[in-house]
Amino acid sequence: MNGRPLPGEFAFIREVFAPLAAGEEGAFGLLDDAAVIEPAPGCRLAASVDMLVEGVHFLAGDPAFQVAQKLLRVNLSDLAAMGARPRVYLLGLAIPKPVDLDWLRDFARGLAADQERFAIALAGGDTAATTGPPTLSLTAIGEVEAGRALLRSNAAAGEHVYVSGTIGDAALGLRLLQGADMGLAGHARDAAIARYRLPEPRLRLGMAVPASAAVDVSDGLIADLGHICIASGLGARIEAARVPVSGAARAALGRGAVGIADLLTGGDDYELVFTAPADRGNAVREAAARASVPVTRIGTMTEGEGVSVLDREGAPMEIGKAGYAHF
Amino acid sequence: MNGRPLPGEFAFIREVFAPLAAGEEGAFGLLDDAAVIEPAPGCRLAASVDMLVEGVHFLAGDPAFQVAQKLLRVNLSDLAAMGARPRVYLLGLAIPKPVDLDWLRDFARGLAADQERFAIALAGGDTAATTGPPTLSLTAIGEVEAGRALLRSNAAAGEHVYVSGTIGDAALGLRLLQGADMGLAGHARDAAIARYRLPEPRLRLGMAVPASAAVDVSDGLIADLGHICIASGLGARIEAARVPVSGAARAALGRGAVGIADLLTGGDDYELVFTAPADRGNAVREAAARASVPVTRIGTMTEGEGVSVLDREGAPMEIGKAGYAHF
Repeated sequence: MNGRPLPGEFAFIREVFAPLAAGEEGAFGLLDDAAVIEPAPGCRLAASVDMLVEGVHFLAGDPAFQVAQKLLRVNLSDLAAMGARPRVYLLGLAIPKPVDLDWLRDFARGLAADQERFAIALAGGDTAATTGPPTLSLTAIGEVEAGRALLRSNAAAGEHVYVSGTIGDAALGLRLLQGADMGLAGHARDAAIARYRLPEPRLRLGMAVPASAAVDVSDGLIADLGHICIASGLGARIEAARVPVSGAARAALGRGAVGIADLLTGGDDYELVFTAPADRGNAVREAAARASVPVTRIGTMTEGEGVSVLDREGAPMEIGKAGYAHF
Repeated sequence: MNGRPLPGEFAFIREVFAPLAAGEEGAFGLLDDAAVIEPAPGCRLAASVDMLVEGVHFLAGDPAFQVAQKLLRVNLSDLAAMGARPRVYLLGLAIPKPVDLDWLRDFARGLAADQERFAIALAGGDTAATTGPPTLSLTAIGEVEAGRALLRSNAAAGEHVYVSGTIGDAALGLRLLQGADMGLAGHARDAAIARYRLPEPRLRLGMAVPASAAVDVSDGLIADLGHICIASGLGARIEAARVPVSGAARAALGRGAVGIADLLTGGDDYELVFTAPADRGNAVREAAARASVPVTRIGTMTEGEGVSVLDREGAPMEIGKAGYAHF
């Protein structure tokens, strides 16, 4: 007999996924047991894993192209928060059988589009049959110069706290998708929904910014800044009025359709929150300009613990839960 | 308000999983966005991902301790097949809520036991809620000296084909678990079932053996040797009578309870199949002795394509399907 490839699995890996690995020598055409990766001289590798589950993180009807982009980008956002440059990724796909080849092809097209954009290639993976919802796991591997990783534990009291872009748009987008009517103009609605659906990992900012500590906003600004506080053994104080919000968010706030606490604790923004010494303000702004990403100072790291939010009068605000709880 | 950790997820990560990362500096106590890994001088990193789905790869009632070991070991077997030394792993767990903490604790104890045994540590991960069966993804990262990776594509015509250990025990074990009565003695039954349940990754052999090409037997001997053939653009010829089988398998064959083809195409043995030049036979045997793993020559790489299996008279055998098909 002949050692023919098994029906199905090897055929769709060769057709759909092998082209995504074509540019990466260490992927061995997806034909080997493991990928081999060599960091650039003086660099370490940074590795992160994130999963998306259908019905939890995306809906059955969502375009596979976009699901693929979201899967890749939530991981790239973790690399951004470490200051790492993307290198390769590994895929773990648990999918129902029979395999929906059209879905997989669209999924692969989404990956291909983002591989080009973010200079990363597929290097390996596994596919498994499941009786449950499609469950997608991605391991992103990047590289960062030795000693340059932006650790959550590296903040110091007195450092300034910055955030990139605007905060709360993804939370707005989710509410709009859930049917909330906020009286927003069409383009503002679309922009908020797009923010929810498709993160924009702040890779160039993460690589350029002279930050001490950084985290990406996935669970919510307060919750994620809280992670820097816990890891650094510090507290933080932010001024709600300084937190940058989009025009759509300002309109929704103005109408009372959402409160500022909803925006500060909403997940999925995938902006970077980071700290830097007070005397590095100019260097932070220059790095932000080089990365073409707006950056705003929102507060200060303090002794103590937890994140305090102050209102316009400088009085502490009561926020409730800090962010999204998975369990 | 305070940036308290979210209820549930962060609590069980800290309690159950952080201790598994305690020995690994680059894991940052599981508190950061990504793990940071530095290969030893002159080494590359090797990365592999494998998933297990409840109801497909393990049963709902299986002990979590053992499920964890299997999840880790199937990945370690991939590192073994690259000749890599284990370094760290990342976990991706999609689990139903509410979280079954007792299950997770037992799962973590299984990981802890194998971390010790195989000198690997947890460096990061993600947990997600799922409405479906528990779906477990693991990314294993090892290191291998530059130029020493055992690629599937590196076999040459005329090289000898070797296999470690014995072949077909896992297939026997699966049949026994499915209720087949093969008239085996109790200890032979137990041994075959243990082989199916708990792979023994051949890491020391992979690191020591002067092989040209290697693969681990997960889909079946014929199918996996077929992967070397495809990647190397060659064929292979093996002699069925040379393939090493255990006493239990010999007894089952003798009773006609299974055929040799069942053993040659059964999955889950996690032995190594590898090729080496004919003049390296002594070096192969010495490496096997150092690794304390029996190794048997079963055939030869040839021009052409596909795996031919010869019977005792040297006539080609008809085998049917080459191995386990996932889809």
